Amino acid sequence: MRGEFELIARYLAPLAEGAPGALGLRDDAALYAPPAGQSLVLTLDTLVEGVHFLPGDPADLVARKLLRVNLSDLAAMGAAPVGYLLSTAWPRELDESWVESFARGLAADQAEFGVTLYGGDTVSTPGPATLSLTAFGTVPEDRALRRDTARAGDALWVSGTIGDGALGLAVLQDRVEDLDPADRAFLAGRYRLPRPRLALGRALLERDLARAALDVSDGLVADLGHIAQTSGLAGLVEAEAVPLSPAAQRAVERDPALLPRLLGGGDDYELLFAADPGAGPALEALAAELDLPLVRIGSLEPGRGVRVLDARGETLPVPEGGWAHF
Amino acid sequence: MRGEFELIARYLAPLAEGAPGALGLRDDAALYAPPAGQSLVLTLDTLVEGVHFLPGDPADLVARKLLRVNLSDLAAMGAAPVGYLLSTAWPRELDESWVESFARGLAADQAEFGVTLYGGDTVSTPGPATLSLTAFGTVPEDRALRRDTARAGDALWVSGTIGDGALGLAVLQDRVEDLDPADRAFLAGRYRLPRPRLALGRALLERDLARAALDVSDGLVADLGHIAQTSGLAGLVEAEAVPLSPAAQRAVERDPALLPRLLGGGDDYELLFAADPGAGPALEALAAELDLPLVRIGSLEPGRGVRVLDARGETLPVPEGGWAHF
Repeated sequence: MRGEFELIARYLAPLAEGAPGALGLRDDAALYAPPAGQSLVLTLDTLVEGVHFLPGDPADLVARKLLRVNLSDLAAMGAAPVGYLLSTAWPRELDESWVESFARGLAADQAEFGVTLYGGDTVSTPGPATLSLTAFGTVPEDRALRRDTARAGDALWVSGTIGDGALGLAVLQDRVEDLDPADRAFLAGRYRLPRPRLALGRALLERDLARAALDVSDGLVADLGHIAQTSGLAGLVEAEAVPLSPAAQRAVERDPALLPRLLGGGDDYELLFAADPGAGPALEALAAELDLPLVRIGSLEPGRGVRVLDARGETLPVPEGGWAHF
Repeated sequence: MRGEFELIARYLAPLAEGAPGALGLRDDAALYAPPAGQSLVLTLDTLVEGVHFLPGDPADLVARKLLRVNLSDLAAMGAAPVGYLLSTAWPRELDESWVESFARGLAADQAEFGVTLYGGDTVSTPGPATLSLTAFGTVPEDRALRRDTARAGDALWVSGTIGDGALGLAVLQDRVEDLDPADRAFLAGRYRLPRPRLALGRALLERDLARAALDVSDGLVADLGHIAQTSGLAGLVEAEAVPLSPAAQRAVERDPALLPRLLGGGDDYELLFAADPGAGPALEALAAELDLPLVRIGSLEPGRGVRVLDARGETLPVPEGGWAHF
């Protein structure tokens, strides 16, 4: 593979052309001035080959997932995305076509989400490919969606469908049987290419429709636990209300034991948020406007912990920690 | 080792206490609003075990080096540092005392440089420890030191001493003989614990004393090449003028063939800058004020490339690429 500077000039510098503050990726650091009255929102996530993506995953999809999991963090705060810094530790023996495809994936998502590469670092590693990305965006000053601001009595809402990410990973690892090829492809795609809910996050913030929010990355139950714990409340979920995709529904029909695993699994990158119980009509209007399902799945109550109730009102045990990394 | 959330709560959250925008490291992203009239400066650098630090290096020094190489990038732009995001990919078998020592190192440098942890990510890796850090700071809007703004006729200056980093690495790898223990310890310390020249960068920017600047991380000759190339000029260095520490001087006296390797070596983290030829007295006054040697080592001329001249005015060949990572 080419040297560091050549790789940057050839594959990464073109991604920085839209950002004057990137200084052509030729300087020590990047410059960005947020518009007056805006705060910066910053997040940094890392994907490790063999841990967060599979060695055979297409490089362009890995790149887009790396960018999207970070954009999902911005979405959860209600931020408008601006740009990103990228640090890649690539194995020396990596084929250069991998880097080319990786950059192509980034270019596609830059166009889709209106973000630009600002800077970063390119190094080699004797270990697995390790990809870190810092995304940044803006929110109106002193206003961001947070996790710790839910109130007792708030309704719990979720966007899209839950469990596809975990099921998609299981499909890619050949751990799920009896699914037709179209469902397998849909679920694998949901795992590989999350859709950061940026428009939803922005609208929730601008219209003041959410009291607290986060993105579902660790798993619905674990992430609800984060809202509940930081807000000093208990979370209550009605399992039957949790929206599943048709593919996930068919999988659960064949194997009902899958349901709790989907509620505990990770990598959904949907938004989970707490809203005033009276906000239902406004949220339904927003769902129609965004063409994105928003479903009420439970509530926050005084107390501690998270409880999932089945159709009979009995506690459904959910395996903990879809994505605990140690 | 403990799980991700416990490690964060125990070792990293205390480092974020000074930053309200870090939200206790419990949210998806961090918030920061630069003061009015200030631009943000952002940089992201990664250290890989076995590539950028040695497996036996003390964890607190690795942490401080990780932070300092990023702060050095801010210094090179003339920025005032504010905070950082940290992403750590740790091997599962890593001893928790390593993490504890790592966090202790960060705490020490937070106190020294007035920065605070704002957020990040903690994951596991089947490979070597891989540590990414995004540092951010501020400069007055539309004013930052850059590489590409030198002019023909500018004088070239450098801070501190050059070559200690490369020599320190050689000492740690037992590739240098005949140095007394005090010199060995000094050089190893210079490699392990660079001193980001933040006060110098700020002063150069505020007093308008530098036309272009960067930090010497790839090696004096390679980094001068970056200024020369991006500014469309040729760089000329008088080898005899390049400031060496007493320890490096003694090493070169014993083995004169070392000199070109020191000029080509990396990891100095001093500032190299281009200044108006008339700025000498102001720079000498600044050196006295900061108690930091600033030495004129050459000039920028019309043309291309970098040439190092020995005492007789003849070209001294310098090995390329102290730190080319591929």
